[in-house]
Amino acid sequence: MLTREDNELICRTGPGTPMGDLFRRFWLPLTVSSALPEPDCPPIRAKLLGESLIAFRDSSGKVGVIDRNCPHRLADLFFGRNEEHGLRCSYHGWKFDVAGNCVDMPTETPESTFRQKVRVKSYPAQDHGGVIWVYMGPSYLRPELPEFEWALVPETHRLVTCWLQDSNYLQAVEGDFDSAHVSFAHRWFNQQSIPAVRRVPRRLAGAGDALTNLDTAPKLTVKETEYGFVYGSRRIAPEGQYYWRVSQFLLPVWSLIPGPNWPRTGHAWFPVDDEHCMAFQYSCNPEEPLTEDQIARLKASPDHPYWTAHELRDGTIIDTWYPRRHRLNDYLIDRDLQRTATYTGIASGREQDMALTDGMGRIPERWREHLGTTDIAIIALRRLLIRLARQLQAGREPAAAHNGAAYRVRPIDILSDIHDFGTLYDKHADLAVAGT
Amino acid sequence: MLTREDNELICRTGPGTPMGDLFRRFWLPLTVSSALPEPDCPPIRAKLLGESLIAFRDSSGKVGVIDRNCPHRLADLFFGRNEEHGLRCSYHGWKFDVAGNCVDMPTETPESTFRQKVRVKSYPAQDHGGVIWVYMGPSYLRPELPEFEWALVPETHRLVTCWLQDSNYLQAVEGDFDSAHVSFAHRWFNQQSIPAVRRVPRRLAGAGDALTNLDTAPKLTVKETEYGFVYGSRRIAPEGQYYWRVSQFLLPVWSLIPGPNWPRTGHAWFPVDDEHCMAFQYSCNPEEPLTEDQIARLKASPDHPYWTAHELRDGTIIDTWYPRRHRLNDYLIDRDLQRTATYTGIASGREQDMALTDGMGRIPERWREHLGTTDIAIIALRRLLIRLARQLQAGREPAAAHNGAAYRVRPIDILSDIHDFGTLYDKHADLAVAGT
Amino acid sequence: MLTREDNELICRTGPGTPMGDLFRRFWLPLTVSSALPEPDCPPIRAKLLGESLIAFRDSSGKVGVIDRNCPHRLADLFFGRNEEHGLRCSYHGWKFDVAGNCVDMPTETPESTFRQKVRVKSYPAQDHGGVIWVYMGPSYLRPELPEFEWALVPETHRLVTCWLQDSNYLQAVEGDFDSAHVSFAHRWFNQQSIPAVRRVPRRLAGAGDALTNLDTAPKLTVKETEYGFVYGSRRIAPEGQYYWRVSQFLLPVWSLIPGPNWPRTGHAWFPVDDEHCMAFQYSCNPEEPLTEDQIARLKASPDHPYWTAHELRDGTIIDTWYPRRHRLNDYLIDRDLQRTATYTGIASGREQDMALTDGMGRIPERWREHLGTTDIAIIALRRLLIRLARQLQAGREPAAAHNGAAYRVRPIDILSDIHDFGTLYDKHADLAVAGT
Repeated sequence: MLTREDNELICRTGPGTPMGDLFRRFWLPLTVSSALPEPDCPPIRAKLLGESLIAFRDSSGKVGVIDRNCPHRLADLFFGRNEEHGLRCSYHGWKFDVAGNCVDMPTETPESTFRQKVRVKSYPAQDHGGVIWVYMGPSYLRPELPEFEWALVPETHRLVTCWLQDSNYLQAVEGDFDSAHVSFAHRWFNQQSIPAVRRVPRRLAGAGDALTNLDTAPKLTVKETEYGFVYGSRRIAPEGQYYWRVSQFLLPVWSLIPGPNWPRTGHAWFPVDDEHCMAFQYSCNPEEPLTEDQIARLKASPDHPYWTAHELRDGTIIDTWYPRRHRLNDYLIDRDLQRTATYTGIASGREQDMALTDGMGRIPERWREHLGTTDIAIIALRRLLIRLARQLQAGREPAAAHNGAAYRVRPIDILSDIHDFGTLYDKHADLAVAGT
Repeated sequence: MLTREDNELICRTGPGTPMGDLFRRFWLPLTVSSALPEPDCPPIRAKLLGESLIAFRDSSGKVGVIDRNCPHRLADLFFGRNEEHGLRCSYHGWKFDVAGNCVDMPTETPESTFRQKVRVKSYPAQDHGGVIWVYMGPSYLRPELPEFEWALVPETHRLVTCWLQDSNYLQAVEGDFDSAHVSFAHRWFNQQSIPAVRRVPRRLAGAGDALTNLDTAPKLTVKETEYGFVYGSRRIAPEGQYYWRVSQFLLPVWSLIPGPNWPRTGHAWFPVDDEHCMAFQYSCNPEEPLTEDQIARLKASPDHPYWTAHELRDGTIIDTWYPRRHRLNDYLIDRDLQRTATYTGIASGREQDMALTDGMGRIPERWREHLGTTDIAIIALRRLLIRLARQLQAGREPAAAHNGAAYRVRPIDILSDIHDFGTLYDKHADLAVAGT
Repeated sequence: MLTREDNELICRTGPGTPMGDLFRRFWLPLTVSSALPEPDCPPIRAKLLGESLIAFRDSSGKVGVIDRNCPHRLADLFFGRNEEHGLRCSYHGWKFDVAGNCVDMPTETPESTFRQKVRVKSYPAQDHGGVIWVYMGPSYLRPELPEFEWALVPETHRLVTCWLQDSNYLQAVEGDFDSAHVSFAHRWFNQQSIPAVRRVPRRLAGAGDALTNLDTAPKLTVKETEYGFVYGSRRIAPEGQYYWRVSQFLLPVWSLIPGPNWPRTGHAWFPVDDEHCMAFQYSCNPEEPLTEDQIARLKASPDHPYWTAHELRDGTIIDTWYPRRHRLNDYLIDRDLQRTATYTGIASGREQDMALTDGMGRIPERWREHLGTTDIAIIALRRLLIRLARQLQAGREPAAAHNGAAYRVRPIDILSDIHDFGTLYDKHADLAVAGT
C-alpha cells in the first residue's frame, strides 16, 4: 500500500509535479516512427505528461514536437499545413520549423522584427529504434538516448507497437514487476483452447506455461543498479532445480521480460495524462530477422489496435492506436472461456493485463491494498520512483539519464540449482549483457 | 420547497452522510434475484449508496455482495472467476467466499498466515421475494427483512422488475406520494388511443381513469406510523361519494399503490449514487397466480428495459436494466399523441414519470419550488426522512428496521361517503392488513 | 493577450457576472423564428447565458421564453403541452402564458388564490427579422430592437441561419474582426478546386480572392462609435490603389462583413453557456429577393447543419442545429485538399473558422497569445467589451441598447487611392448608411 500522499506523488506527472519533473529528465517515447511515415505527412495530435502536443515530420525527415496551439492566437496546429521544412498554421499563415522558430509570418510587413521574437514551444525529438523520442526537460540537462538492444538492431530484427490505455501509467508498469500474476492472469489451464496465434514455444516440450504454473508463489530478490534495478524470481522446478526469471527495471518506466527464446519482449507505459497512458511493446531478435509468424503473433496481443482520433476524459482529442477490446466492451470477456481455459476469460495477454489494471480505477486507491511476499518488486519499484522524485526536488539529478550505455542489458530465463539470487546473477552475468 | 442545506442532506447518501447512514440501517434491494440466475453464474457489477460492488451467487446458491476491487492490488473482481464456493480474482488467484473470507491465496506459501488476515469488504445478502437484499450497516444493528406481502406470496403470484433511472432517488420516490399527478401525467383523455396492453380494468365500467380525472385537486391527510406513514387522498366522486386512495410509505423509500383490483403494485427507488437510482416495481396477487396477460401488461411499463453494461456519469460501469425510452431519446415523446390523447405524449406510465422526474435535474434545486395543497404527502415524506436522518445522527435508531412484521400492510382504493380520513381508516382497518 | 483575470471577465456570462450583465442589457437572438414554425407547435429547449429555457409559440403566434423547469416541482416543461394560449406542464397540469402567468392550476380548488401568486420566470420575446429575440435584463431598462437592415427588408430578401459551436462565444466573434485570416484560412490557392457552390463572384474578373491574397498584412484603423466601432483594413492593390474593407462591430457581438456584391452577410455568436455558443449568419439583398442559387450557396457554409437534440458538456440537452462537420470528425479535413488547394483542407468557410476557433480550447488561455499588427481590431473589441462591462458594474448603462436606429449601417468594400481611414470614411459616409 501507499499513503494517499505518496500515491498522489507517484501518480501525478503534469508540469511542476515532482514525478513529472523526474520523467522530464529522460528521453520519452511519444509514438512509433511509422505514425509519421514520410516527410511532410500530416501532423498528429499527442499528449504526454499532460501537455498537448503536435508532432510532424518536415521535408528533410526531421521530427518536430511542438505545442498544440499556435503562439499567435492559439489556433489548433493540427489543422496546420506541413510544407517545405515547416508547419504552417492555417489561421494566419505563421510557419514554424521543428526547432520552434517562426520562419514565416505573412501578417507582418517584411521590415518587422516581430517574427524573430516569437517561438512556438518545442521539444527536441528524434527517431531511434523505430520510435519517436522527445525530451521535455531543461536544455542544459539533455540526457543520452537509452541504448536498448531492440533499438540498436536492424529494423528487420524488431517490432515496436504502441496503443492507448485507460488508466494512470503506474498500475500498468507495475504489471511487469509482478512475476506472480503470470501464473494466473496469463495462465491457460486448458492448452487445447489457446488460439494458435498465441501458442508460445516453451522450454519444456508440451508444457506450455508449465514452469510458472508449477509454483505460483515465487520468491523475489531485488538489487538496485545504475539504470534502476534487477530482480530475480525463483520458482521450484522439477528434478531439484529452480526456475529463475531475472528482469530489469530501467528508468523511468521500462522493463525487459525474460523468456527462453528469441524474440524477447519488454514494455513501458508513459503518462499521456494522469488518467491515460501510452503502452509501448518492443520485441527483438538480435541474431536474425523476425519471421512473419513471429510478427503475426506479436501483433495479436493486444489484438491489432486501430488508428483513430480518440477523445480523452478532459475532452482533448489525440491521434493514437486504440485497442479493439476495451473498458466499454468488457475486453470481450468470454465467460465460457473463463470456465474452461483461462482465468480472465480474455484470450489475449495484453488485454488480460488491461482489464485488470484499468479496472483498478483511473488512479487506484493504493491505501486500500494488501501486499504480500510476491509484491516485493512492485514495492521496490514504487520506493525507487518516489525516492528519485524526492531527490530531484532536493537537487539531485538521476544518473541513469546520462548513461545510455547502461541500458545494454538482457533479461534471463534459466533453470538452475542455485538458490541465492546474488550467486546466480554473478555466475550468469554474461547472459545479462546485450549483444550489440 | 427545501432549503439548500436540507436538500443536500436528504439527497446525499454516500458513506458518512446522514441520509446514507439512515439507508444503511435497512435491508436494501440490490437487484432482482434473476440477475444471478444460477449457482456459479457470472458476477455482476452494481453500485449502491455510492459504493461500487460485485454480486455473485456461489456453488451452493448463496449470494455474495463484496467490494468491487480485490483487497490485494485492487483488480476488478468483475473479471473474477466464480468457481467452487468462491469468486477467484483472475489477477493473482486470491479467492473469496460470500462472507468475504479469503479462502485461497496461491501467491503465498502454505505456511503463511497472511491469508487469514485478509478479507474483502462484504455485506450480508439474501434472496427474498425474488429480490437480492443487502445490508450495508453495522453488523450489531442488523435489521429484520421487511415482510412485504409481495415478498411472501408464491413466486407465481408476483412480478418484480428493476431498472436504472437518471436522477437522484428522492424525486422518483416523491412521485408515489403525489396523488395529484395521476390526474395529469397518467391521464388518457382519449381512451381510444390507449394501447391495448396499457388498458387497465377500472371500477367504473368504461370510465378508464375517470375517478381520478373527475377531481384533480384531491385533499390529502397524512398519519405517521411505525413503518413510516399512511396517507389518504380524497376526491369528489359521483352520487355524493368520495373516491378514497389510501397509500403507505414504508421506510426507507417503499410505497404501495392503491387500486381496485389485483394485482396491486408498488415501487421503491434506491440510490445507486447521488445522480442515478435503481427503480423497483413489484406486483402481486395474493389470491392466485398472475396471468400471462397481467405479466405482459406489467412488463410494458416501463417498456421492456434491456440488460446492459451502462456507464454512469462518473465513469463507473454497472450491469443493469436500462429503459428503451430515456433522456437521450426524449423518452420517444410523440407530439401527436400529446395533442390528441395524453398530456405527456409518452405512452407508458413509468416513462411518463421518468421524463418528468429526470427532467428536474440530477439533483433538483428544491429551493425553487412552489408547493401546493396536493403536495402534503411529499412534504410529510421529506420531513420524516430529514427528521429520522437527524435523529440517527443524534443516536436514535429507526424502529421500523427492526420490525419486519410492520410491513404487512395493503393500500386501499374505495368509494365511501366518509369525509374524514381518521374515521375512514379506522372503519376499514381490515382492508389495510396483508393477507399472508 | 489578456491577463487571466481579464480573460475570465470577458468569457464568463452566467447570471451575476459582469459580462453576463452587459449581455443582459440587449435584445439577444435565441434562435431563428422557423424553429417555432406555427402557433401551438412543440416547445423547444434552449440555453442562453447559462440559463436553461423553453421557447414556445402560443395560439396567437406570440413567442414565450420561460424557465425550463415548472415553478411547482421543477418538472421539465419541454414535456409540456402547448395548447390554447399557454404551455401546460404535463406533470400536474399547471399552465403558463407567454408572460409567465399561471393561467390554470387544476391541483387547487377554484377558490384558492395560490395560482395568482405563482409565476414561471419569463423573458420578453419577439419575432423580428426572422429571428426570435429575447431580453433577459431588468424590465425598467428594456432596450430597443436593433434596426439591422437585414431584419427590416422583406422576408424574401434575406436568409438567417443559426447553429451550435463548441467553444466560448468570444473567439468565434473575434474571427469577424480579423481581416488577416481571410488571406489564409479562407484562401483558395487553386481556384479549380473550389466547389461550384462556394465560388463567389468577385470584383476582379477571374481573380477569386485575389485582393485579399495580394497583401496578407493589412493595416487596420479602429474608430469607436455609439453602436460599437467601425474599422478599416487597407491592403495594397494593383495600379497604385488600396483595397479597403470597412466593417462594423455592433454591441454586444454583431458584425457586418464587407463584400463587393449583394447579398451581404454578417455574423454574431451568443453564449449558450461558457463552453458553447450559438452562431447566427444573416445575409440580405435590400434591392431584390435572394435567388435560389444564392440561398443554396449560403446554406452550404456551414454545410447544412441538422436539427437535433444535442447534449451539452454539463449534461443539458438542447434543441439546435448542429454542424455536419464538427470537432469529433475533425471537420472532415481532407489532407489532399490542404496540400493542393486551401490551407485548412476544409472546403467550407464557416467550418474553416470553427476548426480553428474550437481548436483554441473551450475557453482559450489568452495569456499565452502573441498579438501582432493585424490584431488591432480584435484588441479594440476586447478592450471595448471589458470597459463596458466594468462601466456597467459602476452603474453606467451602454447607450447602444437604447438606440435601435444606430444599427442602420452597412460595411464598405472599395478600391481607392485614399491612404487615411478617416478621410476615406468621411468621403464615403453615404455607403455606410443602410438603405431601408
